[in-house]
Amino acid sequence: MDMLPRERFSALGGRLHPPVISALMAAALDNPRLLSLAAGFTDTRTLPVTSVTWTVERLGCREGSPEHLQYGTTQGRRRLRELLSARTSQQDAGSPGGIVPARTMLGNGSQQLLYIAMQVLCDPGDIVLVDRPTYFVFLEMLSGLGVTPVSLPARADGSWDFEAIDALLTAMRADGRASRIRAIYLLGYFANPSGLSRSETDKSALAARLRAADLVVPVIEDAAYRELWFHQPWLARSVFALDAWEGFSRLYLGTLTKPFATGLKIGFAHASEADLLERMVWLKGHHDFGSANFNQAVLEHIIEEGEFDTHLVGIRRAYAGKMLALHRGLERAGLRRLGWEWAVPDGGLYLWLRAPDGVDTGIDGPFWKACMKEDVLYVPGDLCIAERDDRRFVRLSFGVLEPPALEEAAARFAHAAERVAPSK
Amino acid sequence: MDMLPRERFSALGGRLHPPVISALMAAALDNPRLLSLAAGFTDTRTLPVTSVTWTVERLGCREGSPEHLQYGTTQGRRRLRELLSARTSQQDAGSPGGIVPARTMLGNGSQQLLYIAMQVLCDPGDIVLVDRPTYFVFLEMLSGLGVTPVSLPARADGSWDFEAIDALLTAMRADGRASRIRAIYLLGYFANPSGLSRSETDKSALAARLRAADLVVPVIEDAAYRELWFHQPWLARSVFALDAWEGFSRLYLGTLTKPFATGLKIGFAHASEADLLERMVWLKGHHDFGSANFNQAVLEHIIEEGEFDTHLVGIRRAYAGKMLALHRGLERAGLRRLGWEWAVPDGGLYLWLRAPDGVDTGIDGPFWKACMKEDVLYVPGDLCIAERDDRRFVRLSFGVLEPPALEEAAARFAHAAERVAPSK
Repeated sequence: MDMLPRERFSALGGRLHPPVISALMAAALDNPRLLSLAAGFTDTRTLPVTSVTWTVERLGCREGSPEHLQYGTTQGRRRLRELLSARTSQQDAGSPGGIVPARTMLGNGSQQLLYIAMQVLCDPGDIVLVDRPTYFVFLEMLSGLGVTPVSLPARADGSWDFEAIDALLTAMRADGRASRIRAIYLLGYFANPSGLSRSETDKSALAARLRAADLVVPVIEDAAYRELWFHQPWLARSVFALDAWEGFSRLYLGTLTKPFATGLKIGFAHASEADLLERMVWLKGHHDFGSANFNQAVLEHIIEEGEFDTHLVGIRRAYAGKMLALHRGLERAGLRRLGWEWAVPDGGLYLWLRAPDGVDTGIDGPFWKACMKEDVLYVPGDLCIAERDDRRFVRLSFGVLEPPALEEAAARFAHAAERVAPSK
Repeated sequence: MDMLPRERFSALGGRLHPPVISALMAAALDNPRLLSLAAGFTDTRTLPVTSVTWTVERLGCREGSPEHLQYGTTQGRRRLRELLSARTSQQDAGSPGGIVPARTMLGNGSQQLLYIAMQVLCDPGDIVLVDRPTYFVFLEMLSGLGVTPVSLPARADGSWDFEAIDALLTAMRADGRASRIRAIYLLGYFANPSGLSRSETDKSALAARLRAADLVVPVIEDAAYRELWFHQPWLARSVFALDAWEGFSRLYLGTLTKPFATGLKIGFAHASEADLLERMVWLKGHHDFGSANFNQAVLEHIIEEGEFDTHLVGIRRAYAGKMLALHRGLERAGLRRLGWEWAVPDGGLYLWLRAPDGVDTGIDGPFWKACMKEDVLYVPGDLCIAERDDRRFVRLSFGVLEPPALEEAAARFAHAAERVAPSK
């Protein structure tokens, strides 16, 4: 009477696969000696324990009803939406780009809002244009939804290759794929995994290319790492504020999670078009009718009191130091001499390394095995590439480990690289 | 160049509608005199402010790393899953029904886990069997997913009408609809909206009926209100513990939200089959890779220290008192004499009223308008019925208002009923 497993799940259920990261994490848990440069977790030492404790106390002592422990609304707290709209507008140089509380919503991290946007915009078989490389959990999400990601061609330094982009769009129009393109997903600030930021010139040029190809489709700019700059903010405005993107439906995603406390898990979205945000709010009503009001109240208070910004000063310094510890550790261990290349990022949580030709960084490849032997963990770069057609890259995260451990991890990584170095 | 709105959304996006509750809430917000018996919110006066504040302080003072502010796992905190598995097993009279931490996961309220289960199990065009009446947000969720709910026929007292159920299943097998039935959704404890609980005999009889009809499909028991009994727990065990449900894939949904603090928004699911839970965890990885670890840590500590149970003692008394205030208020105001009927529930947050024949309780019907005139708000019962084919019912919530306000609301409601009473 039991049905076969295949028949017990929906088409979506049948498309699901175990997340790659869980295999990586499982490996990490089983080996106490292992140093993980894989997970995109944040620094533990600088977590704002006092700030959160103090805020919860304050909220509990306020006169009137303890509304922070009651349900909120599906869209999220109005005051927090006001604070976040003002904040993003200010980061966009005060441009009146239409970032307003009414078209802002809150979610369980920006990830949930990305998922909801994809559900509202894309059917199975549709296409989303993405960066090369891009956020690998987004690629897994699309795979679950049956949506195909297609990379925007990039040059060796990660910048968009506009000639190749034109050629791609032309080809996609010719073979009919262009009609299935439902969205563009961009990482404008200290991207995961590349660490790269986009200039206004490049962002505007991309809009012009898309418009010329008659592809005025929704654009999602994921700015999860925008606040995590090391020495100065990346000054390019978001797609919201750039004239070239007028007429595109724009969705801006930000988070309070990475820059403050990942345990609180609150992200936000600004939409340029009321109809997109409205449908996203309706769908969130089905998912969970609102993210935890308590967490929103805590963060609202923390931003309003200026503690969020105070905290950022400290963690920016911490991450800048950690980045340098890993970067210099890799240099000192001689990784560049082995033919590995990477840029020094100005923010974010990641180094994006290119191995010399002939080194395969893929999971269960020889380099992966060498790293397992050295007890150091990384994210294989091909997981971050829509087409999975390049196994020369590695993502290293410096978020979690302390500088001495980062230096040790760098040494181990370089040892592994030495083992698999192509013979000259 | 702009596309028409219809083309800008996916099939799912196009199916979305504004939630009915938001129209009700908007009405409430615009009228300060209005008393709402509509929203299923919880009591504000008894919110556990001190308990939460104290717990956050304690977590902040623990030795070691402040892990409560760091990311957790997608499945949820192991210790909390252990505590919840033990708790549900105990409520199921210690039956070794296979409720274990490994097949337990946490979500943003049990609502999110219900949504994820539906995504994993159902395709558009599929069918889910539901109670009559049932949780109306679930009906909205199914509508978004393109899934059709079909009511299990019930007698006037709300109990299952097994003869009619047999006839329904036979008819659905005959016309082919049975092959699209992918799940059964049951509310076993102080149901929203009926207040009804199911006996073990009836639950087992339903399983036998389904098995006889060759419908061994996943069953979801939503036990959101199980902890909110007034004088004694409802002793019937869940479908997990009943022999008659052996061989069915079973999912049990519970929540820490309604019985403690809705602002914290943590629910849980126990699955009988590893493959269902596994896919739900993978999909949650796409949604948000885990609910706020902070909230889980707070609730874990609160359950472990016994404060959760202490809190329940108080709120059970509070809700029993509120229920009586509303119930007696309606009686005193003469509603029974007007031909209205309702049962006195033993738990939960709702009264489920049947109007006399000839009274239409539907939204924008004459009774709705009379209530608007009296400044009292309710949920029209037809929203809670899959087929929307009976407009004689009303859901009243006694969760939010204090007893004097409940009595006033009851009087207003009865006045409205008087206005529309069918002439004898």
